[in-house]
Amino acid sequence: MKKIIASLFLLTSLAHADEGMWLFDAFPTDKVKQKYGFTADEAWLKHVRLSSARLTGGGGCSASFVSKNGLVMSNHHCAHSCIEQLSKNGKDYIANGFYAKTLKDEVRCPEIEVDKLVETTDVTDKIQNVTKNLQGKKFNDELKATMSRLEKECSQSSDQVRCDVVTLFNGGKYHLYKYQRYQDVRLVFAPELAIAFFGGDPDNFNFPRYDLDVSFLRVYDQGKPLQTKDYFKFSKDGAKDNELTFVTGNPGGTSRLLTISQLEFLRDTKLINDLTTLSELRGLLTGFQQLGKEQKRISTAKLFQVENRLKAIKGRHAALLDTNFFDQKVAAEKKLREKIIGNSQWKKDYASAWGEITAAYKDLKNIYVELDNIERNNLNSHLFGIAKTLVRASVELPKPNEERFREFADSALPQLKLSLFSKAPIYPQFEKAMLVHSLTKLREKLGADHPFVTKVLGKQSPEELATALLKTKLNDTKLREKLYAGGAKAIEDSKDPMIRLAVLMDPDARAIRKKFEDEIETRIKQASEKVAKAQFAVNGTSTYPDATFTLRISYGQVKSYQENGHEVKPITNFEGAFARHTGREPFALPKTWLKAKSKLDLQTPFNFASTNDIIGGNSGSPVINQKAEVIGLIFDGNIQSLGGDYGFDEAQNRAVSVSTSALAEALQKIYGANRIVDGLLK
Amino acid sequence: MKKIIASLFLLTSLAHADEGMWLFDAFPTDKVKQKYGFTADEAWLKHVRLSSARLTGGGGCSASFVSKNGLVMSNHHCAHSCIEQLSKNGKDYIANGFYAKTLKDEVRCPEIEVDKLVETTDVTDKIQNVTKNLQGKKFNDELKATMSRLEKECSQSSDQVRCDVVTLFNGGKYHLYKYQRYQDVRLVFAPELAIAFFGGDPDNFNFPRYDLDVSFLRVYDQGKPLQTKDYFKFSKDGAKDNELTFVTGNPGGTSRLLTISQLEFLRDTKLINDLTTLSELRGLLTGFQQLGKEQKRISTAKLFQVENRLKAIKGRHAALLDTNFFDQKVAAEKKLREKIIGNSQWKKDYASAWGEITAAYKDLKNIYVELDNIERNNLNSHLFGIAKTLVRASVELPKPNEERFREFADSALPQLKLSLFSKAPIYPQFEKAMLVHSLTKLREKLGADHPFVTKVLGKQSPEELATALLKTKLNDTKLREKLYAGGAKAIEDSKDPMIRLAVLMDPDARAIRKKFEDEIETRIKQASEKVAKAQFAVNGTSTYPDATFTLRISYGQVKSYQENGHEVKPITNFEGAFARHTGREPFALPKTWLKAKSKLDLQTPFNFASTNDIIGGNSGSPVINQKAEVIGLIFDGNIQSLGGDYGFDEAQNRAVSVSTSALAEALQKIYGANRIVDGLLK
Repeated sequence: MKKIIASLFLLTSLAHADEGMWLFDAFPTDKVKQKYGFTADEAWLKHVRLSSARLTGGGGCSASFVSKNGLVMSNHHCAHSCIEQLSKNGKDYIANGFYAKTLKDEVRCPEIEVDKLVETTDVTDKIQNVTKNLQGKKFNDELKATMSRLEKECSQSSDQVRCDVVTLFNGGKYHLYKYQRYQDVRLVFAPELAIAFFGGDPDNFNFPRYDLDVSFLRVYDQGKPLQTKDYFKFSKDGAKDNELTFVTGNPGGTSRLLTISQLEFLRDTKLINDLTTLSELRGLLTGFQQLGKEQKRISTAKLFQVENRLKAIKGRHAALLDTNFFDQKVAAEKKLREKIIGNSQWKKDYASAWGEITAAYKDLKNIYVELDNIERNNLNSHLFGIAKTLVRASVELPKPNEERFREFADSALPQLKLSLFSKAPIYPQFEKAMLVHSLTKLREKLGADHPFVTKVLGKQSPEELATALLKTKLNDTKLREKLYAGGAKAIEDSKDPMIRLAVLMDPDARAIRKKFEDEIETRIKQASEKVAKAQFAVNGTSTYPDATFTLRISYGQVKSYQENGHEVKPITNFEGAFARHTGREPFALPKTWLKAKSKLDLQTPFNFASTNDIIGGNSGSPVINQKAEVIGLIFDGNIQSLGGDYGFDEAQNRAVSVSTSALAEALQKIYGANRIVDGLLK
Repeated sequence: MKKIIASLFLLTSLAHADEGMWLFDAFPTDKVKQKYGFTADEAWLKHVRLSSARLTGGGGCSASFVSKNGLVMSNHHCAHSCIEQLSKNGKDYIANGFYAKTLKDEVRCPEIEVDKLVETTDVTDKIQNVTKNLQGKKFNDELKATMSRLEKECSQSSDQVRCDVVTLFNGGKYHLYKYQRYQDVRLVFAPELAIAFFGGDPDNFNFPRYDLDVSFLRVYDQGKPLQTKDYFKFSKDGAKDNELTFVTGNPGGTSRLLTISQLEFLRDTKLINDLTTLSELRGLLTGFQQLGKEQKRISTAKLFQVENRLKAIKGRHAALLDTNFFDQKVAAEKKLREKIIGNSQWKKDYASAWGEITAAYKDLKNIYVELDNIERNNLNSHLFGIAKTLVRASVELPKPNEERFREFADSALPQLKLSLFSKAPIYPQFEKAMLVHSLTKLREKLGADHPFVTKVLGKQSPEELATALLKTKLNDTKLREKLYAGGAKAIEDSKDPMIRLAVLMDPDARAIRKKFEDEIETRIKQASEKVAKAQFAVNGTSTYPDATFTLRISYGQVKSYQENGHEVKPITNFEGAFARHTGREPFALPKTWLKAKSKLDLQTPFNFASTNDIIGGNSGSPVINQKAEVIGLIFDGNIQSLGGDYGFDEAQNRAVSVSTSALAEALQKIYGANRIVDGLLK
């Protein structure tokens, strides 16, 4: 029972705090130099950026290049779905781990893509020049069309290049990001889940910690290991107390710049909904796991995902319920608005923005249940998700690039296809359990008499409909490819029950989405742009935008903290892991560890806590030192960091990493994975 | 997707609203006469009071005497646990219903007790004279001791008499309630769950509705049907639109008089905790139900209880999140406090109370997780609950009556023993599932390193400990009787693992309870008494106290209401039920109904909505007309009524009842239960 929320968040003054998820082209070099005496010059920053990577397809994660021949390091939990997907014929790589003894034993992950950011361009003017005099639907349509156009021009329709226009500062700025895209990514090494996630859900988001949450992957280019100039050298020594640390990675999203009415919507509507939905799903999955070993195996990734998200949301919700914290947010907004009103030009340009956002969110609240359950809902079913994508693709792809739903823009297609045509196994029993549950919740949330519910269920029970749907043949990737290629005609002719359901649902789903985008989203975007400009006007632009699952760099140091009146030391060691071992899940060390104990240096630093400002999406990020050597691997934050979505408190927020010292010791002495160690230390 | 919270709650002016759960000795006769032209005289009120009943042991419910020979009517869901407990040897009375064709086929319910309120006495002075100059622990101890003493004097240690001191207006008044207690209560009739709970969770708390949520029980006295002078005559005609209706019953609890800081605690701490806890349990139970028919049968009552509570709490939480509503509460408190400050005597006596409550709740928040999980937690296990009761009894019973925990006071023992020695079956597989879950949640909520958790679990996993605990022999009621009789020595000598666990836990549980009672509860009580007196001073005493699961009477009328812009008619009929029938759970009518359809008058009024102010605990309440004939049976409220915990809105809050016309038609034409009909119409 730890105190989740610190009493003081440093919201306004960033003076000496290690706060910030900085853009590489706006790194606060002077501030870091002043506090830590180290200058991160342009060459250093460029090398670090090019050695960093983003990983999609296994949940959004970060990663790093750690050898000259394409070796990539990330978390076990970022590759969990791949590891599970590759398990078959009695081989359970989740339970037993995986190690490719030779290059040719490396196996391709069906859905993982690695992206390397090679170039960023400020396109704010290009976009705002197009949208500046537009309102409502027209604003939103032109904004999206321009983004799709810029992306297509950038990627030149190459599948090897990925281009994304990224909205920064809620529309205050727009950057065009160009990535090198790699889709042939192979699994090299993963330890047993028991040590990757030692302590399980009870220890998740806690510290002290003892996890080897690592996976090694390799990026292939044209069938061969990718040769790279930029990669992080590996430090066998790991991190030291008080050492200056940098984290590069892709924090998924923060909400630090949101207005009070947006935060209230999160606190009182969205997060409450998420908390109960995820809690119930968690209970159901826990029950499903009891059915047998195989059922446990095939539902573990989902259960982890649900528990991890639930814990994160509990922490975020608790932060918003913390009145000290919320009052500071309210005060900060009040102060900003007063300054805006005090300047006649600013007042004219920006003062209406907050009221406009409040009004838009009031409307959003009224349609939220329908938007969430009719359009955003994929019934927790992999197969339904595939059917929905195929049905939508048949409508969207014939349109000009600029007029499509953004997820069907040309720039998004390579990743969409990777996932759509993935050969990863789908388990009918698990699909059925999820479908029955999702259809039951659909009826519950919209009400049994809602036209959409009666249209979907008719007189059938959720159980009956789920049974009928599972006659789908979409498990066959060939069929998916055929339907994708066949377009509208193929969809129209298909008698596949899952396709028919997706077709049946599509008009209502489109209608509520259109209502949201044309009548609400556009107002939020326009007003948010004004809020961002108001903030720039008052506070200047030398700050960092909210996280957007794009590359950022944060700085900090390995550092202890106070909790419930005592000091938490920032570095754990192997000895602590053995002391915590009870022999029972989730506190059972793998047999490999127990066997190797006598060979291990038990003083080896294992996990460490640092002040780096990170959030979900940073999982798998490298922690590097001044020499740009990797000394750690981010895998979590402490419980106090969960409020980080809304603010940063250097006193208690900590990023949690595996020390590279532990990786070296374990790879050599426990797993005999010399091929990897050689690659790392070369 | 209905709008849960009406925009306007009538908080202060009760002028013309049918608001109020009135004490029988403070019924607003004039107000009713003025609005409805009917005078409820003393004789009428007395007859109504003596024809009403309270039902415990199946969840707290209400009931009514409906024949001169002890026939009692309540809801199916109030007798659900009894119906389930009596099912065995392949007889599933939940699925198939139950009907005792002759008197000797009536079967005793293992845990149900019926109480009839025979006398109430105002003991406010007796109590406040004792406590008036006391503070802190001393105040609380003396308060409880005086209550136990008054109760014992009243009941004269007779098991047939139950006496409770009831705290009204949060301590503004104390009444002593004397009940005739009946523990030989037998099941006479119950329909199939499919019609008792037609529409299931989706329709729960909704209207229009089509449920026959009824059970008939019979109270026996010395082995024979109880002969009573006071009972409600049964109207075959049921309720008519706009008819004046009275509801008598035992509303469980409301929070309309709480201060803002108390409501904030509910909104931001307690209800959030309940929402996630219940949601997860719901998911787990839904999973458990998939295991098989028998598993479904033995977990249905629990699932209903959890879903019902979850829905109610969602509604309550939504009411507190409604800013219009909450702002009215804040304004009302502000106004009251201003008036108190404006009068120097009131200021001196009462003005500090709100601050004192705020401070006490701040402390409560700090210990809430421990209080909730160490003391109030019974691990969701029937057998652990028994062990805990036995262990506590061995310590408490040797103490003088006044010094015991209140639940071990002499006045509480008959009901405690009824439950403790009940022969109702306990299902090991279900117990195990609940134990594993509860122990896992205990570890999660307190944290894996909490001393209480390490003490309870040691190195064991929740699964292992649950397995070990299920070697308990407490399923044997003889053993329970022996341990109860054997006292401390028997407990000390017992090697029963569940007893040993309860012994292990007891010191910590007592410690946190003591901390709560001595340091927090006592301050809340003292300050609440001041708030109540402040309210009396400003608003007078001609109002009703918050509900306390004691007998109240509310008035109102059968009435339509507006929802999402259209009128909801207040009375449904059998035809509507057949139209809603899909043949699939929970919208599948029983075979008996389908078979009897042609014989039924499909225009028979089925369920109806009325403006009576009720809340959970009123389930099973009779709805009566001016002639004190029963015309309906309360079983639910509409979704808009869920905010009723904090306020009443006559425009939309509706009580939902089974019309007696439907009962008569179904009993005769579907169930051929002529023996019951004869009893009712005699």
